[in-house]
Parts: sequence; C-alpha cells; structure tokens
Amino acid sequence: MLSVRFLGLDVFGTVVDWRTSIARELNAFLRRHESDLDPEALADAWRGLYQPSMERVRSGERPWVRLSVLHRETLDAVLKQNGFDVGRLSNEELTNLARGWERLDPWPDSVEGLQRLKKRFVIGPISNGNVSLMVWMAKFGQLPWDVIAGAEPTQAYKPQPQAYLGSAALLDLPPGEVALVAAHNDDLAAARACGLKTIFIPRPREHGPHQQIDLTAEQDWDVVADDMIALADRLNC
Amino acid sequence: MLSVRFLGLDVFGTVVDWRTSIARELNAFLRRHESDLDPEALADAWRGLYQPSMERVRSGERPWVRLSVLHRETLDAVLKQNGFDVGRLSNEELTNLARGWERLDPWPDSVEGLQRLKKRFVIGPISNGNVSLMVWMAKFGQLPWDVIAGAEPTQAYKPQPQAYLGSAALLDLPPGEVALVAAHNDDLAAARACGLKTIFIPRPREHGPHQQIDLTAEQDWDVVADDMIALADRLNC
Repeated sequence: MLSVRFLGLDVFGTVVDWRTSIARELNAFLRRHESDLDPEALADAWRGLYQPSMERVRSGERPWVRLSVLHRETLDAVLKQNGFDVGRLSNEELTNLARGWERLDPWPDSVEGLQRLKKRFVIGPISNGNVSLMVWMAKFGQLPWDVIAGAEPTQAYKPQPQAYLGSAALLDLPPGEVALVAAHNDDLAAARACGLKTIFIPRPREHGPHQQIDLTAEQDWDVVADDMIALADRLNC
Repeated sequence: MLSVRFLGLDVFGTVVDWRTSIARELNAFLRRHESDLDPEALADAWRGLYQPSMERVRSGERPWVRLSVLHRETLDAVLKQNGFDVGRLSNEELTNLARGWERLDPWPDSVEGLQRLKKRFVIGPISNGNVSLMVWMAKFGQLPWDVIAGAEPTQAYKPQPQAYLGSAALLDLPPGEVALVAAHNDDLAAARACGLKTIFIPRPREHGPHQQIDLTAEQDWDVVADDMIALADRLNC
C-alpha cells in the first residue's frame, strides 16, 4: 500500500478533458465569425503552443508569468496563424475565450474518484495551471481540491524539479510522501527523479481518437489504474 | 448586495476556536507532566507570543518563515517561561504539541455557514497561517476551503498590505472584489485600507469569558453578521 499523504494531480488531460472542452469553446467562436476552420484542429494547434510558451519561462528568456497569461498570448498567436485579424476582435471576446481553460469538463470518473480519494488523502493539483485558473476550474467542474500546488506556488513549470519538490515542501512533506497522479509518462518520470511516488492513469482519448502517445505505462510506476474510480478502489478509499 | 467573488477568511478566532482547542492540547500535556499550571492561561501566554514572533519577520529582522515554525519556537519559549526544562522533552512531543494548531475546532456555525457560502463565492483563508497548517486544519475540522491565500502565498504577515493585496492578486481579482471576513476590527481596518470589502463577525468568547476587545463593530463595515450561518442568510446563500 502506498504510504503517501498528498496525491498531487496533473490536471490537463489527467483530470479534465481539455480537448473536447476547448473545441466546444472554439466552435462557438468560429460560428460567430462564420469560419469553417475545424475546432478540434484549432484546439490542437492552440495546445501546441503550450510547451513552447512555458519553455521561454523555464529557460529564463522571460520572467515568471502565469499560465493564464500564456493562454491569452498563445490564443492571439494561433488565431493570427489561422488568418484572423486579431486587432479587430474585442479584448473582451478574446479574454473570455482564453478563459475557456477555466471551463474544462472533468472526465466522467474524475469527480466521484476524487471525492473518494479526498477522504484518505490530501488532494490537489501539481499542475502548470495557475491558482486562479485551478480555482475557477474547480468551481465549474466541482473538483474538490484541498490545496493548489504546482507551478504558481513554486514559480516553476513542470518538468522542472522545483515544481515537484516545492509542491511537497508546500505541504511540509518529504517528496516520498507525495504521489503524482498523471496520464503522462514524461511527467511521472520527472516526478520520480525528484523522489515522488508515481501513479499512472491512462487517458487514451486525451488527444482524440487517433492518439499515439501515453497509451500504456512506460515504466514500473508505483500504481497503474484505469481511471480515478479504479484508483480509489485500489487505494481502499 | 456585496458584489465580491472571493470571501477571504481570517481563521484563528473567526472560523475556529483556537483557545479552547489549544487549552485542550495543553491540558493533556500538563497532566502527562504532572503540572498544575492552568491550561487556558498557558494557551493565552502562548498566543501572546504570536504577534511578537511575526513582528520580527514583518520588520525584516529575520527572513520569511512559516507560522508553523514560529509556533514551534514560541512553544519552547512559553514552556521555558513557565519552568519547563525544554531540553529534557522529546522533540516528537514538542512537535506534536505545536501541531495542535492544526487541530482547532471550528465554531459551531462555521462548517454549515461556509458550505453555504461556498456555493456562491470562492472561500478560503486570508490568514497568517501557512498553507500546510490550513490544509491539515481543514481536514481535521471539515473546512471546505476553495483556495488558501494569506501569509504564505504573499510572503507577508497581516496587517501588512501585501497580505491582502497579494491574496486578491492570487485570485486574479481587483481588491474590491474580495471581502475579508474577520472577528477583529484591526484586521478589517487594514483590509479596508487596501480596498477590500469588509465583513465583521463578532466572536465574543474567542479570548474566554472575560473578553474586552472586538465585542462590536468599530467602523461601518460593509456587512456585520452574528455568525457564519447568519452571514450565509444575509448573502442569500
């Protein structure tokens, strides 16, 4: 049995289905502007700018900035790349669309699983999402966080070690008493390198019907469970 | 009607009855050591070192340190002042006693009131308590925080302005969309000076049966309510 006290959750992809939700937000936007772009392809393109935008912060090229700021910047960029004259769109509309990342649907098992896990463990994000983003997402999706760790409290974007180590320190726990729960093998590998325990939950439709990556556990993670409810079963919650 | 989105709660005294709870912890300790000291007087003496310990941080005399560290230091100090040979006590016993601040009973109205307020507002501490202290306290008392703001995320102890302004910034809100809920007029005055809205809840037994301070509202606070349930009624939650 896993002797940890804090289950730190990757959120985008692991807890919530960002792609379907963002495509829904983009679909409404595209219809309003009579565009025939594919909302799912546009969602993928927007998400494609996620790692490069954080990399500029990780590398020190720019000072710390919240993910919600990066989402707003990458929205402008992806719309420009797809032929929109962003300067003619209202700031209010763009800001509201960027805040679509606060309105992501949990996977069908997430809320029930987390409610059960919360009875035995402290639960909360170890996500690259900032605190206010995680708070409003929780209100939207009924996600019962106990605490919000991750990028903003540690001022580091995963997979930087400080994002994991600082999250353990925020809870005043040694890294070995924290488990990262994630659908992504690379995230788990970085957490393990910092001494955290590792729980893999595959999300084979995160990237749509043709997903190629993260379909299976690529290391002997401490726990592998099919979804959050199966994890709660497994951990006797 | 108050048009705020985040109710930031003072915790010690406002949400939880620290004095009764700490006296209970101290009583068990004193019995174990066959001391006839009065646990409530000792609780008051311990709490008496709270402001001076934070003042050394506020003044810059020492670098930022979490309240849980200050609690451990002031426990040693108050025990020494009361004739204990602290060096002969085990570190485990002292650490556990200092962590008594994680085991504070909510006032009888707090949990029900907060659960109702949580439906309409983001709720969470704007407290001098650190994040892990607030997390374990919530687990102990079933306090349904959405987020933990206050001293640790802002690296400032109330009544320093940054503790209030940084808490609003953490939620990405202007100060006027945040209300401080507190049983202490001086805390509310500092919050108002920063542009926050103010909600006074008197706790006339926080300091025991002979309390002299904070029995009534000393300014025209935006809302005054008898307790958390009355506040939920007042705010239509």
